[in-house]
Amino acid sequence: MKKIYAEELKNHYGEKIEFSGFVDNIRDLQWVQFVILRDSTGKVQVTIEKSEEKNKEMVELISNLALDSTVKVYGTLMESPKVKLNGMEIIPDTIEVTSTSALELPFNYKDLEGVNLDTRLDYRFIDLRNDKNQLMFKIQSDLVKYMREYLYNNDFTEIHTPKLIGAASESGSEVFEIKYFDRAAYLAQSPQFYKQMAMASGMSKIFEVAPCFRAENSNTNRHATEYTSFDVEFSYIDSYEDVMNLEAEMLEYGLSKLKEKYNDTIKEVFNEELVVPKLPFPTMTLSEVYKELEERYNYKIAEEEKNDLTTEAEKLCYKLAKEKYNHEFLFVTDYPAEKRAFYHMRDNEGKLQGYDLIWKGVEITTGAQREHRYNEIVKNAKEKGLEKDVEFYLEFFKYGCPPHGGFAIGVDRLTMLLLNIPSVKETQFLFRGPNRINP
Amino acid sequence: MKKIYAEELKNHYGEKIEFSGFVDNIRDLQWVQFVILRDSTGKVQVTIEKSEEKNKEMVELISNLALDSTVKVYGTLMESPKVKLNGMEIIPDTIEVTSTSALELPFNYKDLEGVNLDTRLDYRFIDLRNDKNQLMFKIQSDLVKYMREYLYNNDFTEIHTPKLIGAASESGSEVFEIKYFDRAAYLAQSPQFYKQMAMASGMSKIFEVAPCFRAENSNTNRHATEYTSFDVEFSYIDSYEDVMNLEAEMLEYGLSKLKEKYNDTIKEVFNEELVVPKLPFPTMTLSEVYKELEERYNYKIAEEEKNDLTTEAEKLCYKLAKEKYNHEFLFVTDYPAEKRAFYHMRDNEGKLQGYDLIWKGVEITTGAQREHRYNEIVKNAKEKGLEKDVEFYLEFFKYGCPPHGGFAIGVDRLTMLLLNIPSVKETQFLFRGPNRINP
Repeated sequence: MKKIYAEELKNHYGEKIEFSGFVDNIRDLQWVQFVILRDSTGKVQVTIEKSEEKNKEMVELISNLALDSTVKVYGTLMESPKVKLNGMEIIPDTIEVTSTSALELPFNYKDLEGVNLDTRLDYRFIDLRNDKNQLMFKIQSDLVKYMREYLYNNDFTEIHTPKLIGAASESGSEVFEIKYFDRAAYLAQSPQFYKQMAMASGMSKIFEVAPCFRAENSNTNRHATEYTSFDVEFSYIDSYEDVMNLEAEMLEYGLSKLKEKYNDTIKEVFNEELVVPKLPFPTMTLSEVYKELEERYNYKIAEEEKNDLTTEAEKLCYKLAKEKYNHEFLFVTDYPAEKRAFYHMRDNEGKLQGYDLIWKGVEITTGAQREHRYNEIVKNAKEKGLEKDVEFYLEFFKYGCPPHGGFAIGVDRLTMLLLNIPSVKETQFLFRGPNRINP
Repeated sequence: MKKIYAEELKNHYGEKIEFSGFVDNIRDLQWVQFVILRDSTGKVQVTIEKSEEKNKEMVELISNLALDSTVKVYGTLMESPKVKLNGMEIIPDTIEVTSTSALELPFNYKDLEGVNLDTRLDYRFIDLRNDKNQLMFKIQSDLVKYMREYLYNNDFTEIHTPKLIGAASESGSEVFEIKYFDRAAYLAQSPQFYKQMAMASGMSKIFEVAPCFRAENSNTNRHATEYTSFDVEFSYIDSYEDVMNLEAEMLEYGLSKLKEKYNDTIKEVFNEELVVPKLPFPTMTLSEVYKELEERYNYKIAEEEKNDLTTEAEKLCYKLAKEKYNHEFLFVTDYPAEKRAFYHMRDNEGKLQGYDLIWKGVEITTGAQREHRYNEIVKNAKEKGLEKDVEFYLEFFKYGCPPHGGFAIGVDRLTMLLLNIPSVKETQFLFRGPNRINP
């Protein structure tokens, strides 16, 4: 007898089946016991008539069983329109307890309202039993699947770059140090250098979905010391606009696939409308953004702060993009070059060839055409005082390297925005922050 | 004008096209220059007639151009049966140099025979330009894609577990230590504990493709300090045989898809036959294996060494599996429980509920039904003296956890065996070992 999952039950009325799951609820009445079982695809009722002699042992077992124990039931699946839960019930022949729960759970995972987030994260394995959390991770998995699908369809190759690195990369200030046998090593804060190494090696279209590590002591709803990054890099581009276009197309593809599968569910469970973005995404320069924010919403900040988007300005970009373009996304370009990483290309006038992408008022991507010319990249590194740290990386550009660009999206942050969840603490499988490294 | 990749050229005869790539070769003859360009999908010849006045600048440019520089060519694509390389050539209008290579490369990547492996790894970005290496990573990417596809088709969810962990997990001896703000943290040697956390949370079918970190000072062709692990875990199993069956089906699916796409190429380029394995895979107990190795090949070792497969015995398993079952794979079961991780289940007689999978004489997987019963897992941890280290993990089993099992496959090792490559040093994008952390 094969185990049937909840979502498949409706195809097996009248059959002897095996069903396994957590004990979600027990109603022990005078004449009957209703046991609700739950697997990862849904719930089903098991009905035990107390009066029947053959049920005696089962009745006894259920009477003493703690919720959240797991059981395996053999029995007959009946179509029963009177049963509220999906109009079906299992009439059991035997019930086997496969694990027993402690009598009291640390909190009620069915109603997380008011439960302290730290307590939830301490007991994340309980917290994840919540229906909404279960669904969130299915959607996250599918979102990544569909974005990968877009890239596969466009001949991208997946690579796996090392997270252990010999030199503190990119900036030096935000990396974790490791004891590596008799020397020090570091954790990669992004696959940036190695994505570009792939370009220098002629791979031309690659992506990676992997952890990034940031030793930043920042405690916001968007930051973590470890997060899953969806990284893309490709060669033979003419400008950073090629990068923006590919990213927009990938997101449009992923979100439209997701809408086909989850449209109603997302609305119902997360109270969020999944809008498939129209192509092309709207684009504004940083100074245009500040000009319009002031004109439209009277948002004023000091000139010297206008070299980047403030958190408040990011938020207002949601409003702006919606009102001006009827769009949730906004590309922002023309950031001052000196505020950006040394590997972003500048044109002959020094203008940065990169962008940020803002979704629902939160930055989800930094992308750019990269500097691929050896002399230029060495000059940029020197300007930032990094030429020693990134010596190994500069080598990549000595022996020919095609023009290329790319971007990265934080998967946890994307999930947060997609489903209107307050923080990446809830969209990471297990959040990692300066004060949280357990369980 | 859209850039055309080499593999698409044949659909554009007679058209004005743009082609970009590395300069693979130049033959500068008296009357003509033949320039071979290469992108990630193939090669094409550019033909420049020296006598034509309008070509003067181009001829000059090519005369001074180092191999492995990158260029962008605009021109007309001609079908030319006399051209050996794919029977086509580009007659260029303009050639633009997009990057220039140093005049001499550290080694000839087109013929790696005899080039020192360490030199190749020092200049991995050059080494990867080799055609065979380019193909290897496309095949690796597709293999992972197809294995994922099998799991998606069977309702598995992809998760991303943390690599930063608060306690030295599993055994304590082989983990890297990190400075984590004002405390110590560690790098996960596998997602084992978190895969099982997902089971305790009711997720029931999950997988992860992510880096694992091992602080092992071992220098073999199969070991690395960081590698990509393909991890699977699922609930509601009846025994470890369910785990073996799923793994075998996944490999059969992946390899048959790969054969459809690459059969001839793999034979031609890697001189290796891709055999799609028949289901079910053959299974032998450890003692049966040693008995047959002695009977068939006169392989004798001391009784006390028979608690695990020696490297030599693993190798002979290839011969054995082929001769006895006409199969490349062999499941080996019934390892002594005391040699195995504490989280592997033992039955009432103490028999281990786990297995190894040997492919072509190399172990590619350890899999098992896990111990999901709180009292039993605590007892197992105590026996190994680990109960303090794994305290957080033992919590997962206190509040109900369904029976479950899983396995892990090293992607680099799988690629090595698939393509008959001597070492994972060559199948990792960038190898990491005790003495290698650069570039």
